[in-house]
Amino acid sequence: MKVIIVGGVAGGASCAARLRRLDEKAEILMVERGPYVSYANCGLPYHVGGSIEKESSLLVATEQTFRDQFAIDCRTRCEVVGISSKDKTVELKNHTTGDVTTEHYDKLVLSPGAAPIRPPLPGIDLPGIFSVRTVPDARNIREWLDRCAADCSGMNSGCQAVTNPRRAVVVGGGFIGLEMVENLVHRRLEVTLIEKFNQVMPPLDPEMASLVERYLVKHGVQLELKDGVAGFQQAVDGSLEVLTSAGKRHPADIVILAIGVRPETALANMAGIEIGQRGGIRVDEQMRTTNPDIFAVGDAVEVKDFVTGQWTLIPLAGPANRQGRIAADVIAGRESRYRGTQGTSICQIFEGTIAQTGASEKVLVQLGDKDFEKIYLYPNSHAGYYPGAKMLAIKVLFRKSDGLLLGAQMLGEDGVAKRIDSFAMAIQMGCTVYDLEEAELSYAPPYGSAKDPVNFAGMVAANILRGDMPLCHWNSVDGEFLLDVRNPPELAVESVPGALNIPLPQLRARLGELPRDREILVTCRSAQRAYYATRILLQNGFKARNVSGGMLSRSHAVAPH
Amino acid sequence: MKVIIVGGVAGGASCAARLRRLDEKAEILMVERGPYVSYANCGLPYHVGGSIEKESSLLVATEQTFRDQFAIDCRTRCEVVGISSKDKTVELKNHTTGDVTTEHYDKLVLSPGAAPIRPPLPGIDLPGIFSVRTVPDARNIREWLDRCAADCSGMNSGCQAVTNPRRAVVVGGGFIGLEMVENLVHRRLEVTLIEKFNQVMPPLDPEMASLVERYLVKHGVQLELKDGVAGFQQAVDGSLEVLTSAGKRHPADIVILAIGVRPETALANMAGIEIGQRGGIRVDEQMRTTNPDIFAVGDAVEVKDFVTGQWTLIPLAGPANRQGRIAADVIAGRESRYRGTQGTSICQIFEGTIAQTGASEKVLVQLGDKDFEKIYLYPNSHAGYYPGAKMLAIKVLFRKSDGLLLGAQMLGEDGVAKRIDSFAMAIQMGCTVYDLEEAELSYAPPYGSAKDPVNFAGMVAANILRGDMPLCHWNSVDGEFLLDVRNPPELAVESVPGALNIPLPQLRARLGELPRDREILVTCRSAQRAYYATRILLQNGFKARNVSGGMLSRSHAVAPH
Repeated sequence: MKVIIVGGVAGGASCAARLRRLDEKAEILMVERGPYVSYANCGLPYHVGGSIEKESSLLVATEQTFRDQFAIDCRTRCEVVGISSKDKTVELKNHTTGDVTTEHYDKLVLSPGAAPIRPPLPGIDLPGIFSVRTVPDARNIREWLDRCAADCSGMNSGCQAVTNPRRAVVVGGGFIGLEMVENLVHRRLEVTLIEKFNQVMPPLDPEMASLVERYLVKHGVQLELKDGVAGFQQAVDGSLEVLTSAGKRHPADIVILAIGVRPETALANMAGIEIGQRGGIRVDEQMRTTNPDIFAVGDAVEVKDFVTGQWTLIPLAGPANRQGRIAADVIAGRESRYRGTQGTSICQIFEGTIAQTGASEKVLVQLGDKDFEKIYLYPNSHAGYYPGAKMLAIKVLFRKSDGLLLGAQMLGEDGVAKRIDSFAMAIQMGCTVYDLEEAELSYAPPYGSAKDPVNFAGMVAANILRGDMPLCHWNSVDGEFLLDVRNPPELAVESVPGALNIPLPQLRARLGELPRDREILVTCRSAQRAYYATRILLQNGFKARNVSGGMLSRSHAVAPH
Repeated sequence: MKVIIVGGVAGGASCAARLRRLDEKAEILMVERGPYVSYANCGLPYHVGGSIEKESSLLVATEQTFRDQFAIDCRTRCEVVGISSKDKTVELKNHTTGDVTTEHYDKLVLSPGAAPIRPPLPGIDLPGIFSVRTVPDARNIREWLDRCAADCSGMNSGCQAVTNPRRAVVVGGGFIGLEMVENLVHRRLEVTLIEKFNQVMPPLDPEMASLVERYLVKHGVQLELKDGVAGFQQAVDGSLEVLTSAGKRHPADIVILAIGVRPETALANMAGIEIGQRGGIRVDEQMRTTNPDIFAVGDAVEVKDFVTGQWTLIPLAGPANRQGRIAADVIAGRESRYRGTQGTSICQIFEGTIAQTGASEKVLVQLGDKDFEKIYLYPNSHAGYYPGAKMLAIKVLFRKSDGLLLGAQMLGEDGVAKRIDSFAMAIQMGCTVYDLEEAELSYAPPYGSAKDPVNFAGMVAANILRGDMPLCHWNSVDGEFLLDVRNPPELAVESVPGALNIPLPQLRARLGELPRDREILVTCRSAQRAYYATRILLQNGFKARNVSGGMLSRSHAVAPH
């Protein structure tokens, strides 16, 4: 059996190595268009920023490793320029020699990845405008920044604006955009982030993204939301200008395009296999395309969303690796199946961490799903009495009908990865919010609390589903009677005009001040005391709801976009 | 309805607050023998060490909070000195006034905790010997250390050994013992740790504990295993000496007793309720004792081990809090049930973190369980190419018959809490190792790897269960043919006498050097290349097994105790 694997990074490399382990006799040819296989593309922004100083650190495994360790015929700078699925052959172009050869396959695995989107804007090909996909991309960016720095290093260098890498514009606020922002700030550039949509970090819901946006601004990033790039110009001094749809001009010594990625489907088109509606290669649970001898894995394929069951594009390294293994398993005659992608992801941004898993509210709304509720909570990352505790901002989505956990989004400066993985594992295993209440997670003062944030999320959600705590959200508050149970000094931080303040300890004695004919919305700082107050009110015959997340939710939940 | 709750920390405090939320009308009396309620006992070692400088930080909620916020009659320095379960009364002694009063209850909740074991050894009551349970305990230790320091602070202070807090002996190497060791070292004391058994950290298996032991020694702790304390003496200079069963004498300016804790059952005995075989109060799933009007929660009760189903004592804050909530639920007429305790726990030790969840090998062996396998793995805490990655040492236990995850133990300097919580959630939800393979956990270079250590554990275990990788362990290696597939320079680190070295890349060409009539055990540094080699050998008709964990396992797996 001869298997040709096209693409030697993530999914392709995993597939090749796994297949060799399962089948010592298979003839395996792995071809990669670029100069490197199995490189750490997730590390590229950090190489640009300098945290990963050596380029060689990014090369996880080399051609030589694949040849020697796995007995795989591994060829770099080798591109597939034709596929005949009828003859089961591929045409390979060796970019070093220029030779084109034809190779037969029994099984073909496509792992071409997804390409950075480069819209055909005026000036897009000007020098100084970069995408971040490959090791050479990162090298070119570093050289551009270093060359500039070198040119300016002498007092009498005659340095002009173009040679002074002072101002960067990053276009697009997704993962790569944010990672590049951080790394360029790390290199002391002034960074402007331009995002066409009304939020950064598309997998987040906008009100959670607004916390990220504030955090970026706090760290000196100039953020331009809801403004697309219209084109690029070279200024008279040789530097760049980024022109926006709104007519703004942002000067830049370097521009990073991080608008998003698009599945590479040229090979799939050559092979005549189906492309899905989202633009990715269509595969079944065994990573088989519509041609039974052709498999596809990684960022180029559409996957089923594990929570919603919808076809979607989720370019992530973990899923790509698992898909590669599954394709190898199936080719070797095993029954492995891909269970779908949850979209668990995490992103470092300065001292902060953004993470999410499962479905977002906007995805559920798009699908017309009304059987869900959301909560916001702001627990400490670990016991408040132990130094270094930081507030986590968490949004959790769950089914109203049965409590099934649907998704979680989180931002914080400590303990985010620990919690998002608990949520991720919980979603995988079909956890309900009642299970989260009971989760026995690790606690010692430096790491958590006796009631971990994950437990706390379960408790809040379960309180709602059990009817113990009717809930409402700031964005639907509209003239209801508002009771604020904080202590008077806390009102100075922020307060809601027209709210009645009765500190929680006085509430039982002052029930007479509250209306019996109106619904009372209760708030406090984080919604915890408001929960206690809601319980008092409900048991005394009032109609009451807790405003989810309390005052901590208010500023971002009602933030205009 | 009148409910009396005895014990105002963790379980008792949780029960009281929850009950108030569920029942605004109940009369709730919470009594606490000590001076404080709801204090952070898990923080006490860190208060001694000084990371938590202010004692007031430890007081999470005060009597006043319980009175004002929860309308609970909260009394400190108030001890139960008699219980009549026939009359449903308790006798309360007010330690401030000396008065004894009798109170009726409809429901009684016992949350007395567990007391530090103080064996009746000669000299145990000498000044300078402390336990660590309460805020006053921590205060006394701090005062002892500070007083000594103050006495020595003047050049002409006439300072004697006794007033120089230089040498500490900690007796007992469990959680509190290790936390005290760390905090005393943090205060620059020379610390000797004496442990009667053959390992520290009893929930760990001994070979994992041996990694902790090495770590302690590396950090300058004098470790004395398998030697119990025989008594204490005051030396002529006024300082202490700790005498051991083996006849050693350890000088000490302070001694911390952290031998373990024993459920407080005096109240239960007064009430005539059943005590289990492990010495804790026997309760049902609803935290009800053998008297239907008396509940018990927290460290004083026996719990069902979630994994093994056995009665056990697991004194942990998280479970205590949940049990308190459940007792409140049941008293308020709800159907909550306690699902048992997994024993998820975590402990900071210098820069390292020790954590575990679920069943250990020794517990399974004690129960005569033979349907399990174990693996050792040593993955990086995050992508190796990103700075700061540290090796994790992980042991995972799982069912041979169906792959059910049974337990995990871990030690490392980064990313431990993240992984142990994934394992903990996985065990709660009945995860198999196949589920772990597929887990979609958060990955970006600062946080993890595309194949997270948790995935990696699943893959290794699944490889065994699918028959792809027969396994063996160092402690059962006995003269078999050993093949080492590392590269020659690696052998300098450590090698096994008599092993044949064939570097993995040469293996396919040198199969002729291997015996076909003997089983071949394969090793490398971490068992990953050995896995590849095992696959090559098996597919070429050899009998081969991978030695779990490779050379990284060897030194501790075969460490004599």
